[in-house]
Amino acid sequence: MGVVVPLSGNREPKASVKPLVDLTKADMDRVNRLILSKTGSDVQMIPEVAKHLIDSGGKRLRPMLTLAAARMCGYEGDHHITLAASVEFMHTATLLHDDVVDESGMRRGKQAARMVWGNQASVLVGDFLLGQAFRMMVDAGSMEALDVLSTAATVIAEGEVMQLSAAQSMQTTEDDYLAVIRAKTAALFSAATEVGPILAESDKSVRDAFRSYGTNLGLAFQLIDDALDYGGSKSDLGKDIGDDFFEGKITLPVLLAWRRGNEEERDFWRKAMESDSADEEALQHAIALIQKHGALGDTIARARHYGEMARDALAPLPEGEIKQALLDVVEFCVSRVS
Amino acid sequence: MGVVVPLSGNREPKASVKPLVDLTKADMDRVNRLILSKTGSDVQMIPEVAKHLIDSGGKRLRPMLTLAAARMCGYEGDHHITLAASVEFMHTATLLHDDVVDESGMRRGKQAARMVWGNQASVLVGDFLLGQAFRMMVDAGSMEALDVLSTAATVIAEGEVMQLSAAQSMQTTEDDYLAVIRAKTAALFSAATEVGPILAESDKSVRDAFRSYGTNLGLAFQLIDDALDYGGSKSDLGKDIGDDFFEGKITLPVLLAWRRGNEEERDFWRKAMESDSADEEALQHAIALIQKHGALGDTIARARHYGEMARDALAPLPEGEIKQALLDVVEFCVSRVS
Repeated sequence: MGVVVPLSGNREPKASVKPLVDLTKADMDRVNRLILSKTGSDVQMIPEVAKHLIDSGGKRLRPMLTLAAARMCGYEGDHHITLAASVEFMHTATLLHDDVVDESGMRRGKQAARMVWGNQASVLVGDFLLGQAFRMMVDAGSMEALDVLSTAATVIAEGEVMQLSAAQSMQTTEDDYLAVIRAKTAALFSAATEVGPILAESDKSVRDAFRSYGTNLGLAFQLIDDALDYGGSKSDLGKDIGDDFFEGKITLPVLLAWRRGNEEERDFWRKAMESDSADEEALQHAIALIQKHGALGDTIARARHYGEMARDALAPLPEGEIKQALLDVVEFCVSRVS
Repeated sequence: MGVVVPLSGNREPKASVKPLVDLTKADMDRVNRLILSKTGSDVQMIPEVAKHLIDSGGKRLRPMLTLAAARMCGYEGDHHITLAASVEFMHTATLLHDDVVDESGMRRGKQAARMVWGNQASVLVGDFLLGQAFRMMVDAGSMEALDVLSTAATVIAEGEVMQLSAAQSMQTTEDDYLAVIRAKTAALFSAATEVGPILAESDKSVRDAFRSYGTNLGLAFQLIDDALDYGGSKSDLGKDIGDDFFEGKITLPVLLAWRRGNEEERDFWRKAMESDSADEEALQHAIALIQKHGALGDTIARARHYGEMARDALAPLPEGEIKQALLDVVEFCVSRVS
């Protein structure tokens, strides 16, 4: 029934994102400066909220993917900087709106913006950042990139609504769950990566390869994120363990434990996920059931499956240090503990 | 100190938008079909929420402006349909997010979407519609139109945040208030109108004229909207009288009454607007003070001022039935009771 894979082991997963960070460092400095300049507004609250979120230390994986993909395809212009910043703004806007929708208290180990400035500011500053993201896409001047990124914006919102409809229902299948994470997470990874070869005017087969890489990397990333909710520690993750559980969010670890459980266990899950009454004791019981059925290990195994697909998507492309860095990122994502 | 102008008089303000409705009818049918098709999603909640709002009978003034401006500039393609739908989606997304931010119970005489589906769905379906709006802009294929509309999206969000910061503070000046409505309302009127000549590739002077028309029409429109909150009736307006008052939103009627009032009156305003304790009796007292100082009549006079600016912006352009219809819309906006 699956084997429990320890989340913290002998690997040094942090090391494996380092090549990408190093290779994109000069470009990322420019992205960060652009991000800072585009959060400027005479309306004081906007830079405050944006700074809170932007300073809170995300890895900026998505813009790094844009930068690396563009460079690997031989792009020599400057628009990859603009699009990378745009991708990060889309992501940040989504986080702000997500926190409102999920009623989150924490985000990346800091108080969520909505706890400091209120839901209203989170909704509106999210809208502002989304608007700025589109303006930057226009600055980059590529209709194809605009098409890919604006489609992603729609798909992400669709995925969030899908998740809302599926929330608290134990009827969710693994396919339903996959459709949600494909839309809410993988779509932006995919678009962030695909705009690289678009800027470089690469062949369709190259675009397809990068899109597939991004999609599958995104799926793997989200699966691990969902596993960490039942297995990481607060300091590792920057969000509280059990956040998904208390929100009644049906993720793969829960889904597998429910499907593999007996009637009594299913009763527990239904009560815990479909009502708002779950407490710390319920969370500990949930974690025990997930362990019992090997659901955490199998979630990680599923993540590895998509990780392999991401690796194979890039396989036909020429070797090189950027390609190797992108492959290392896959390993980082499926084995990350922080 | 200003004269009280009755809001319901002998005018037939509905009549004056009719020429625009008639002239754009064939195009608006296409816009409405496009809107319907673009709210489609496999995620059931999306078309439900979108339909609720779209069916609730807004006048669709903004897309009509796009259509009329494009036609008046001699545009003969189809992209004005796409951009008009896009403008309406931007507007609808803003309404959804506004209702969450304002905690509104009613919208256009119907229950606000957030009361039926919750704040979460309102935030996310708003994001979906905004994403679709950008996709349609991409379909229309004009980078200049994309630039104008995406800038408007940012400015609108900025205006909403500005309003949030100014809310409940009697220190708001008329200039602060104008900056808010210029951003949150006039920016979309302006962009909706300007994309017409952009599609038609008209001269800069023509673009400037339409932009100025749109901006000033938008200012007049919002001023009247804010006046109606203290002077219309529920059935006229589709929102409850006093909504702004109970939300502590500082609009021009309040601002003028406060500035013209004595110390005792200012104490009343501070208590009423800066706390959440205002009741129906307080609203009646507020309306009496607004009447006493002629603040409603002067708000309408201010609206007329911007209406005149809108009319003069179009003055240099050749006469014709579309131009006349656009001038009639100004009259409709400053004298509308429904």
